[in-house]
Amino acid sequence: MTNTHLTAPTRFVEIDGDRFAYRRWGNRKTEQPPLFFLQHFRGGMDHWDPLITDGLSEGREVILFNGRGVASSSGTPRTRIEQMADDAAAVIRALGLNVVDVLGFSLGGFQAQDLTLRHPALVRKLMLLGTGPRGGNPDPDPGVLDAAPRPVPTVEDFLFLFFGRSESARQAGLAFWERRHQRMEQDHASSPAVIQAQIEANMYYLAKLDLKEPFKHLREIKQPTFILNGSNDVMIPTINSWYMAQNIPNAQLFIYPDAGHAAQYQYPERFLKHAIQFLDEE
Amino acid sequence: MTNTHLTAPTRFVEIDGDRFAYRRWGNRKTEQPPLFFLQHFRGGMDHWDPLITDGLSEGREVILFNGRGVASSSGTPRTRIEQMADDAAAVIRALGLNVVDVLGFSLGGFQAQDLTLRHPALVRKLMLLGTGPRGGNPDPDPGVLDAAPRPVPTVEDFLFLFFGRSESARQAGLAFWERRHQRMEQDHASSPAVIQAQIEANMYYLAKLDLKEPFKHLREIKQPTFILNGSNDVMIPTINSWYMAQNIPNAQLFIYPDAGHAAQYQYPERFLKHAIQFLDEE
Repeated sequence: MTNTHLTAPTRFVEIDGDRFAYRRWGNRKTEQPPLFFLQHFRGGMDHWDPLITDGLSEGREVILFNGRGVASSSGTPRTRIEQMADDAAAVIRALGLNVVDVLGFSLGGFQAQDLTLRHPALVRKLMLLGTGPRGGNPDPDPGVLDAAPRPVPTVEDFLFLFFGRSESARQAGLAFWERRHQRMEQDHASSPAVIQAQIEANMYYLAKLDLKEPFKHLREIKQPTFILNGSNDVMIPTINSWYMAQNIPNAQLFIYPDAGHAAQYQYPERFLKHAIQFLDEE
Repeated sequence: MTNTHLTAPTRFVEIDGDRFAYRRWGNRKTEQPPLFFLQHFRGGMDHWDPLITDGLSEGREVILFNGRGVASSSGTPRTRIEQMADDAAAVIRALGLNVVDVLGFSLGGFQAQDLTLRHPALVRKLMLLGTGPRGGNPDPDPGVLDAAPRPVPTVEDFLFLFFGRSESARQAGLAFWERRHQRMEQDHASSPAVIQAQIEANMYYLAKLDLKEPFKHLREIKQPTFILNGSNDVMIPTINSWYMAQNIPNAQLFIYPDAGHAAQYQYPERFLKHAIQFLDEE
């Protein structure tokens, strides 16, 4: 039987004493390398959208995982993005892979950029969703500081943080919320230590290393790159996607209307077509 | 026999004493309304890309035309964008159509916006390529002021004005140049009077009508809108596409890398897929 987002078993790979949880399924009979997913702040394997992971898995394998200490992975949570990126590279290699496509969402997009810069030979194509560059514009909407770190986020927090403001955006958010809870066997939530460690990593990442040319490091990303955000991301301001697209030499930029941080979950069918076109392009 | 870009006959429709040239072909057996094309500064029906017009014509009819006084159309060239937009509306109605999709490129994108604002019921969906809003950022690259008004533009002028700076961008530009010269029966070039009139129209269009909220008129565009530019448009700075996407409520923004004003001609296959997805979307 073929696995899906709802049935793929959680497996573990051990790296220097810690066990990293992952799930891997999809079509192995294509020329496309596996697509490796890097998750947002606090999130784990269960926070992806089954419609998107399964849609993408028709043309390639997809691999979800939890970073060190995140949800069902063991170990001390990492406090720097570059360490998380190195862990991701180690997991990719431990799975026997020499090259993957990488999709990073939000904090996962930070990791995806560092993974690409620090391990360029591992990455064929790069997808950056609802994210920003090292040294980017860090000014979120004031409401974010209340909602994002709340110990148990409500669905209203979630809709505010991830979706647009219209009624149809809200309905799309609720539809995603249902989809992402369809899987029966779900990981436990990340610990408070993960939240603390990722806040620290985020803070270091947003510091500008070069005040005159804060984004010059992006010019070293040679991979074909897909950048998506909603028109008004309250967490990582949308202008950061513009900065990435202006500095990564081979980046396509997509902005969806009436949407925020999770534009891909608000318009999953639109996103799937754009993503597949990008991944399949010569 | 089915017509194509290369074979569609030039026809004329008369409106208050002037004869407007047009060409119309494509698939009439779909639910999609015809796609009406509005051309850039100086250009006429022969300046479109056959690969794109024919590709789009597989799923709908396409209609090219020359504005009043442009190339093979008779009459005194218009000196205001809003007049050009009203002429386009008159031509659409004279062709017996109640609703169309509209694709405007550069100065044609100015007209497309005014057409949509002044005749909203005529327009189902709007595509804006290499263009900007009324009151937008008017600062082109200094090289443009030499190249754009030259009486007979050279291919090098054209590559500088429309394409990216890399060798592959140059090759894509030359490939477009070949495609657009494939049709045997081509219009004569627009007269110096057209150039003069369109420069005047351009100047009036770029003036800011409201210094505090120069783009508030864009919020009245309710149609699904597709906005595309290259990452560095030397004629109409790319940031104008960002402004349009931030203010037109239902606009998707696409930016292609290593490209300029004519991103759609540099990546015609990519553009065709994105455009068809947009036009076919529910």
